[in-house]
Amino acid sequence: MKRGGLQAAVAGATGYSGFELARLLLRHPRLKPPLLFMRDSSTNGARELSDLFPHLSGNGSVPLEAFSWEALHRRGADLLFLATPHEVSRALAPEAVRRGLRVIDLSGAWRLRSPDYRATYNFTDADPAAAEALTARAVYGLPELRRAELREAQLVANPGCYSTAAILALAPLLTGDLVDLSRGIVCDAKSGVSGAGKQPTPQTHFVEVADNFRAYSIFTHRHTGEILEQLGLEPQQLFFTTHLLPIPRGILSTLYVYLRRASSAADVELCFRNFYNSSPFVRVFTPPRLPEVQFSLHTNHCDIGFALDPDGMRLVLVSCLDNLLKGAAGQAVQNMNLMYGWDEREGLG
Amino acid sequence: MKRGGLQAAVAGATGYSGFELARLLLRHPRLKPPLLFMRDSSTNGARELSDLFPHLSGNGSVPLEAFSWEALHRRGADLLFLATPHEVSRALAPEAVRRGLRVIDLSGAWRLRSPDYRATYNFTDADPAAAEALTARAVYGLPELRRAELREAQLVANPGCYSTAAILALAPLLTGDLVDLSRGIVCDAKSGVSGAGKQPTPQTHFVEVADNFRAYSIFTHRHTGEILEQLGLEPQQLFFTTHLLPIPRGILSTLYVYLRRASSAADVELCFRNFYNSSPFVRVFTPPRLPEVQFSLHTNHCDIGFALDPDGMRLVLVSCLDNLLKGAAGQAVQNMNLMYGWDEREGLG
Amino acid sequence: MKRGGLQAAVAGATGYSGFELARLLLRHPRLKPPLLFMRDSSTNGARELSDLFPHLSGNGSVPLEAFSWEALHRRGADLLFLATPHEVSRALAPEAVRRGLRVIDLSGAWRLRSPDYRATYNFTDADPAAAEALTARAVYGLPELRRAELREAQLVANPGCYSTAAILALAPLLTGDLVDLSRGIVCDAKSGVSGAGKQPTPQTHFVEVADNFRAYSIFTHRHTGEILEQLGLEPQQLFFTTHLLPIPRGILSTLYVYLRRASSAADVELCFRNFYNSSPFVRVFTPPRLPEVQFSLHTNHCDIGFALDPDGMRLVLVSCLDNLLKGAAGQAVQNMNLMYGWDEREGLG
Amino acid sequence: MKRGGLQAAVAGATGYSGFELARLLLRHPRLKPPLLFMRDSSTNGARELSDLFPHLSGNGSVPLEAFSWEALHRRGADLLFLATPHEVSRALAPEAVRRGLRVIDLSGAWRLRSPDYRATYNFTDADPAAAEALTARAVYGLPELRRAELREAQLVANPGCYSTAAILALAPLLTGDLVDLSRGIVCDAKSGVSGAGKQPTPQTHFVEVADNFRAYSIFTHRHTGEILEQLGLEPQQLFFTTHLLPIPRGILSTLYVYLRRASSAADVELCFRNFYNSSPFVRVFTPPRLPEVQFSLHTNHCDIGFALDPDGMRLVLVSCLDNLLKGAAGQAVQNMNLMYGWDEREGLG
Repeated sequence: MKRGGLQAAVAGATGYSGFELARLLLRHPRLKPPLLFMRDSSTNGARELSDLFPHLSGNGSVPLEAFSWEALHRRGADLLFLATPHEVSRALAPEAVRRGLRVIDLSGAWRLRSPDYRATYNFTDADPAAAEALTARAVYGLPELRRAELREAQLVANPGCYSTAAILALAPLLTGDLVDLSRGIVCDAKSGVSGAGKQPTPQTHFVEVADNFRAYSIFTHRHTGEILEQLGLEPQQLFFTTHLLPIPRGILSTLYVYLRRASSAADVELCFRNFYNSSPFVRVFTPPRLPEVQFSLHTNHCDIGFALDPDGMRLVLVSCLDNLLKGAAGQAVQNMNLMYGWDEREGLG
Repeated sequence: MKRGGLQAAVAGATGYSGFELARLLLRHPRLKPPLLFMRDSSTNGARELSDLFPHLSGNGSVPLEAFSWEALHRRGADLLFLATPHEVSRALAPEAVRRGLRVIDLSGAWRLRSPDYRATYNFTDADPAAAEALTARAVYGLPELRRAELREAQLVANPGCYSTAAILALAPLLTGDLVDLSRGIVCDAKSGVSGAGKQPTPQTHFVEVADNFRAYSIFTHRHTGEILEQLGLEPQQLFFTTHLLPIPRGILSTLYVYLRRASSAADVELCFRNFYNSSPFVRVFTPPRLPEVQFSLHTNHCDIGFALDPDGMRLVLVSCLDNLLKGAAGQAVQNMNLMYGWDEREGLG
Repeated sequence: MKRGGLQAAVAGATGYSGFELARLLLRHPRLKPPLLFMRDSSTNGARELSDLFPHLSGNGSVPLEAFSWEALHRRGADLLFLATPHEVSRALAPEAVRRGLRVIDLSGAWRLRSPDYRATYNFTDADPAAAEALTARAVYGLPELRRAELREAQLVANPGCYSTAAILALAPLLTGDLVDLSRGIVCDAKSGVSGAGKQPTPQTHFVEVADNFRAYSIFTHRHTGEILEQLGLEPQQLFFTTHLLPIPRGILSTLYVYLRRASSAADVELCFRNFYNSSPFVRVFTPPRLPEVQFSLHTNHCDIGFALDPDGMRLVLVSCLDNLLKGAAGQAVQNMNLMYGWDEREGLG
Repeated sequence: MKRGGLQAAVAGATGYSGFELARLLLRHPRLKPPLLFMRDSSTNGARELSDLFPHLSGNGSVPLEAFSWEALHRRGADLLFLATPHEVSRALAPEAVRRGLRVIDLSGAWRLRSPDYRATYNFTDADPAAAEALTARAVYGLPELRRAELREAQLVANPGCYSTAAILALAPLLTGDLVDLSRGIVCDAKSGVSGAGKQPTPQTHFVEVADNFRAYSIFTHRHTGEILEQLGLEPQQLFFTTHLLPIPRGILSTLYVYLRRASSAADVELCFRNFYNSSPFVRVFTPPRLPEVQFSLHTNHCDIGFALDPDGMRLVLVSCLDNLLKGAAGQAVQNMNLMYGWDEREGLG
């Protein structure tokens, strides 16, 4: 690492995730001031981050510039975060890797191995073989599951927000072989509106969202493939449904599983506590306390709680996280910390 | 029915459900102006409904009075709605029946046959045998399932809001024997805050609810027993979980079932359309359109939609209703209409 | 009026105001089923009103069609509501009048007499002289002030939502010459988001509006001119500031005036009650009760209340209305009722 | 100051302001872990801060205890924050001062000098003369106006949230004698619900607040006296009206003043910039940008912006702050920093 700290850059610093990422990187103790690139369409003449986010004004100048490889090179960038739409990430990442940059991509561009699951993205790669090879090298950046691989990763595929909440809730039970998969798993997930991005659409209009609640993308959500691949499940073993909450941010997922044998609440809790023993960003709740969306907002925590049927066979899990932090930018910083061998918690306090 | 219309009365007209009921009864074409009784604790010197609900001012005087049997008698009341806490309803209903009144109770006091399910209410009946006998005579007032029985009912147990949404979504499939019960059913239900009642509590404080979302009463919600009894299910066959939405009113339930054999979306839709053929207040949605909370707000509709897995075996149902109308006061009026042989839709247009 | 009722049409039935208007007209007892025209850009293949607003499904078919003079003629339309952007209204109204239709325009196209105030709209009239002449004939459709003129009006300019709330609060006091204008009037107005229209913009994105509140258009809001013209005020006599509330609908305006001489609360209340004696849609509140946004939602009422300084010289007024009803569609129906000599309240109960 | 840092204590750490304060003190670099006292009525068996605020779990144990002078003495407390109701603060502060503690009181108990303004609190002091004397010694803790006095203060009366927003917006103009007071000042203030406290009441019930907006305490709000006293205004010179916003936190005040002579926007901005030149927590906005509630949430900033009439005589000011931070706990920490000679920004970054 160069003297004075790592030089990171963010492409797409003006979306919701990109802005959260910029905020985190600006105060990260191991970094030089990051380069922040904006998307042309969202600039409106902005030259400073605080032009778009007056929340930040009074804390010094943070310039925004148009993305260019030249600027990355001139500033000696080491690490490039892509907070860009997946088709942009699919185009930029190979070139960044070719130029020797390490890359953390927050989009869905590099998360999926299986061409089947990836089909919904309709990627049109300039060099399909190279893209395939890079896909194979990409590390799925869920630190609680892939801490070791991250150390050497050149391309990290930062997980989807919903996927993070679902995988972290299920992984300990599946790893411990506690779940009766023959009866299937249900993941009923609910997210705040920032998960839909900053682009104004009829679906994000205040009047359509407030006083409302709706399900969407049943059987078709793109995060389904991530959950299946990471947990080694078959499609028929998982119901995954997403809903839009009338709140700005936060995810709560309610998961339903049948256990293979009757268990006590203490058994279940122990399974989680053991699994996340060294994971500072997963908080396991002791029943009857359950996570709520508010508890993890503005933090990088994924909170997990549960309730067990008196017969000890049926289990309801609740997992919560902030979709812009543990579900996106916070997790990206956590991944960066692991890539560079720093404490996982640096800059996320 | 007496000349000049039926004389109805409402005990508990100042809660959320009671007020909706009062509004409906005030404009119902078959009724005299209803007697409205308030609970002492909520009056604050109010003498008029518009003192508590200024929304209604400018529409003439609607007096509120303290509950008394004498007033009911003097005014020649025919029908008594109980929008009172369940322990109050448990005490008032037997006496009302004894006095020859017909009764529609909006609480949970008379909904459950099984002593097991009823145990969670801890009823302390003055005359247990009489209460048991009255329980046996009470009709569960879900018109779409019990239209015929309502005609002669003296005591109608108006269903719970969650129960209505769940039962109406499942009844056609179960009646048609389409569901593989061995794999269980999940009902993941979400409700707005008015379902928690008008009493201020830490759980209904704006700051605790806004920007938040949480699960509650997992495996222990009192509406579970209603759903099981009405659908003839065993406890182990149903996961029923409730959540609090940061909206004033509305319920959305997402239900997960496995079908016994592969079906087409057209099959499923037909099953629902046939079942609700004569039910004006159930709207069946054709995929891919799904109900949203907003669609049924301020109406007496229960909206039902669904998505079917491509393999035709897994089905996700979505049902929505307004918890204060189809989930409470509107359903009570619908029940009244059927009890007196009127068009089911009278006063609910 | 033709046998079978008046034939009304709505251009722009798919915006927020247009939809409310369509709902009111569909149930208005004096009307044939209205013709509903949609704007091309908002259709997405919709052919029925319930395609866009599933709230209405189950109530029969309500076709939507593209606007055409031919359709208006063929269906024998008598009255055309324009719920269109002001530049569209500015173009359509002269032609409609030429064809003998009566017109109620909900936009700002025909509200302002003074070219100065109108300048902010930048109208580019095809025939400026004709437009000027039509402007002179247009009646400002605030029924409480212009009941008589409406009877014969061919073109009614339906007032702005903010203007209605401000003018109705001030007119009685100004008419009674109670206000010390030398000290100026402040109108601090707040509106829900539907006032900003259905078009998705960064300003109406849920994430930007929720948990937020902001002032906008200080000294420059287009409704200012309406208020000044209708009340006969000079620009320097009125501060008018608008704010965006994180609610879907409703306006509350707080107005500050100095009285010319010390008055009692009874004097002030009497002034309002006398002025609105024959106005069924203005509700005057007796102190200390004050209007709240909720009270007039989903009604055509404008609620007015006040607080008087103990010295009897300083007065704070609060006026509330539903911006889509008394502030738009409801008022348009009220205007129609008066144009055709019907009871002002027809179809608005 | 003792080795190892200052020992601070908070009485009332379980209310909204008290919890924010506890959070700030826990991470303040100059302090030992603070003593946190809870109110009996709010404990429900809680023993840890995270029992009441699970947001904090996973960050180590933070014990809560019942208030006692003995505990304060035993732990060698230097500084006592009172986040208690005003009648409690009125009782505790004299004893704390007698025991040699420095005190920062967040209630209204010690803010007002004038018995007239204080009358609305109905204080019943055990020793009226001593209370009067202590009132005279109390420093009104608005750092931007009283930085010097704070250094030696033994009792700091932390300002009201509304008062802070109003005074900071007006002080530069009044100090510069720019305002024509003969025409009066209007302060139209709006606050989120946490300003009403954590106690559940009908006024803070989610269903009463959501989709609503209302004015309250017109001519009678207790913060009026603070504004008048601190700015040297007469009651007749200020309209001060408060409103309840359907958001958890944040204040926006819109203020209306007439200037004594025509000014340019540059003049006005310069007046503010000069006045707040050394005040890191006031952010002055350059027109046409205006503060919004979101910008200062979760910060200790007070944001001030304005719009000037083209004639340069009429000025609208907008000031925003987070009522729990700059309006309460953040300002209390800022005051502490100044009392102990530390950088004003310590622990507030």
